[in-house]
Amino acid sequence: MINIAILGYGVVGSGVAEVCRMNNESIRRRAGKALNIKKILDLREFPDDPLADRITHNADDIINDPEIAVVVETIGGAGFAYEMSKRALSAGKHVVTSNKELVARHGPELMALAHKNSVNYLFEASVGGGIPIIRPLHKCLAANEIESVIGILNGTTNYILTRMEESGISFEDALAEAQKLGFAEQNPAADIEGIDACRKIAILGSIAFAEYIDSDKIHTEGISSVTVRDMKYASKLGCKVKLLASLKRRPGKLADIIVAPMLLPASHPVAVAQGVFNAILVNGNALGEAMFYGQGAGKLPTASAVVADVIECMMHLDKTPHDITWNVTQRENVVPHSECSVQALVRINKNGNISAAESLFEPFGMERIEEIYADETAYRVGLNQNNRLNEQSLQHILSQLRGNVVGWIRFYQG
Amino acid sequence: MINIAILGYGVVGSGVAEVCRMNNESIRRRAGKALNIKKILDLREFPDDPLADRITHNADDIINDPEIAVVVETIGGAGFAYEMSKRALSAGKHVVTSNKELVARHGPELMALAHKNSVNYLFEASVGGGIPIIRPLHKCLAANEIESVIGILNGTTNYILTRMEESGISFEDALAEAQKLGFAEQNPAADIEGIDACRKIAILGSIAFAEYIDSDKIHTEGISSVTVRDMKYASKLGCKVKLLASLKRRPGKLADIIVAPMLLPASHPVAVAQGVFNAILVNGNALGEAMFYGQGAGKLPTASAVVADVIECMMHLDKTPHDITWNVTQRENVVPHSECSVQALVRINKNGNISAAESLFEPFGMERIEEIYADETAYRVGLNQNNRLNEQSLQHILSQLRGNVVGWIRFYQG
Repeated sequence: MINIAILGYGVVGSGVAEVCRMNNESIRRRAGKALNIKKILDLREFPDDPLADRITHNADDIINDPEIAVVVETIGGAGFAYEMSKRALSAGKHVVTSNKELVARHGPELMALAHKNSVNYLFEASVGGGIPIIRPLHKCLAANEIESVIGILNGTTNYILTRMEESGISFEDALAEAQKLGFAEQNPAADIEGIDACRKIAILGSIAFAEYIDSDKIHTEGISSVTVRDMKYASKLGCKVKLLASLKRRPGKLADIIVAPMLLPASHPVAVAQGVFNAILVNGNALGEAMFYGQGAGKLPTASAVVADVIECMMHLDKTPHDITWNVTQRENVVPHSECSVQALVRINKNGNISAAESLFEPFGMERIEEIYADETAYRVGLNQNNRLNEQSLQHILSQLRGNVVGWIRFYQG
Repeated sequence: MINIAILGYGVVGSGVAEVCRMNNESIRRRAGKALNIKKILDLREFPDDPLADRITHNADDIINDPEIAVVVETIGGAGFAYEMSKRALSAGKHVVTSNKELVARHGPELMALAHKNSVNYLFEASVGGGIPIIRPLHKCLAANEIESVIGILNGTTNYILTRMEESGISFEDALAEAQKLGFAEQNPAADIEGIDACRKIAILGSIAFAEYIDSDKIHTEGISSVTVRDMKYASKLGCKVKLLASLKRRPGKLADIIVAPMLLPASHPVAVAQGVFNAILVNGNALGEAMFYGQGAGKLPTASAVVADVIECMMHLDKTPHDITWNVTQRENVVPHSECSVQALVRINKNGNISAAESLFEPFGMERIEEIYADETAYRVGLNQNNRLNEQSLQHILSQLRGNVVGWIRFYQG
């Protein structure tokens, strides 16, 4: 029997206990040993919980218990969770987490600490909820140079965008609906502003490059400025508006990486993800394309990924650790955002200076989009492959056209 | 440095050498050691190949070489490949294969032999080509009871069906085109008749159940009887015709399992797989749905999965084996085909006995489909949830209506 502890008995933490209970027998079969949740750290009491007697408020009860071999960290955030993860790893315990913020921020340090103590630091659940992506990317694709990763990595924003697309409602109304249904938090900033997706693509990029990509260096835009009109243009152009996290390998092992709402062709495999679903498309130089799709969040899906990592630890308790390590490089490994090339849909007020807009965008290649709204003219800009429009030039032109531009949004460039 | 050998230098075998060459550096980084292809067994000579000097015609050169730690079996078939796999495992060498026929037929014995000799027998490349599916199913989903697996597992048939759908051409013409383009073999029986997909779902089912499912017990139909008219009905009904391999867990750990062409709603995630692509949707009791999508065949994709397994072996040369084992059960673990419930599109000749058809299907629930062809009437049958139509009853009715039935095809039931 292997004893584990859960740190933080919230949604995911209690989900872990539930998955352990419901799939007790198959876990024992796969791991070769039974799993016992010996302690649960939380500030609260859970008198009606089947595991009420395991609750402790004292972290030392877990850290100092030599019988506890695996610690599940489902606290969240990069404060107390960080301290506890370090303490557990230093005490020679394997640590499994769903905490993308912590992995994105302190991953290299925690992995090095795990390595030093010959234990694992596993985080399959940090990206894609229950979808297996971390291990496949690391393991199965080991024989590939990863050329690109593109994903819909946040279920909350995808739900909102799907509702806007289907029902023609505004961002605000779709958000309110998502909150009512529990698909968005009362303070939804981390999701809505793209921060959650940014942390996840930083983690996937770090695995793909085997080198730490700092999430702070990733240009990130949220979806709060997406409008019903953007949706109409998308539909007209055979596209969907999706919050995409995109990583492309550039020469010199540089990452062209961005998180932003974009127009994505509806026929693109990733566009299959509607509602709370996530999809991640990986391109390897030998593999070609492989896509992973499923529920990117939710109590039981996320918990099942945590438990799978726990089983992995149980099977190799005294063996070499799993050994994901990310080198922290001194060089810049992210292409400066201003230099990234871009295509965009730009909408100009019909009463504005149309000819100024056309002459500014002309050198970079543009085409006019068939009229949908009588009060504006829309263009697809950045089509000239020999004179690429980059983000800096786009911003420069948009600022020159200030007052004339009604709105703009990027196209995904495959 | 780790020495490996390749048995069979055909498409996949030479692809393995190519992937090792092109991704030499990333393999070394991931595995922590360099990989060297020391010997290649083939009857032919390859004087112009960069590895010409590694070719041997004598299997003993590999089996008796203690320096060779990992053997890649890309011979195919269940004859010589079977003998060589047994010899290599018995000699304490890890074996990696892409050979679905061998795994489906002799998997339990070869895994047991590997276990006995403390080595791995890995076969990621046997299903889904380069798509990571075997390891995710086994590992990442360890915390789930797998409720169902549905997949488009054969690229050749999917290419043919996609071409029929897109261009309205016949099965024969689409097959001829696929052969011309190299997507179908000159003797395409194993693909066309569903045998390849059958072996693959047997492998996935065996993993999902942790118990051997014999491919010979799986009801399997190919696509040669799919017609242009089936495609038209599919399109009218918002469906696609796909060769589906479907496994559903029934009470008592019984597998309801079938390989056959079916009408699948176009909005179903698996329907995203067009052309040579594969898609596999797994449903776990905690996870919910997860889908894996990509190129299911091809030299480099398949080879990259083989190489990933080789890297796995290299990382754990002296450790406990990976330990996939399938119990061989004496009990029947497959639901008899005749008892499986079914929904179908049945097309009756307008000059035939329409009222007989209607009265026979009526008790099982039916609805008439809006007319497409003036010379036939089509029905969706088996809609009554309280009086399920099973395969035996369907066949019985179809034989009673012999001469009146123009054609029929199943609907996928989610």
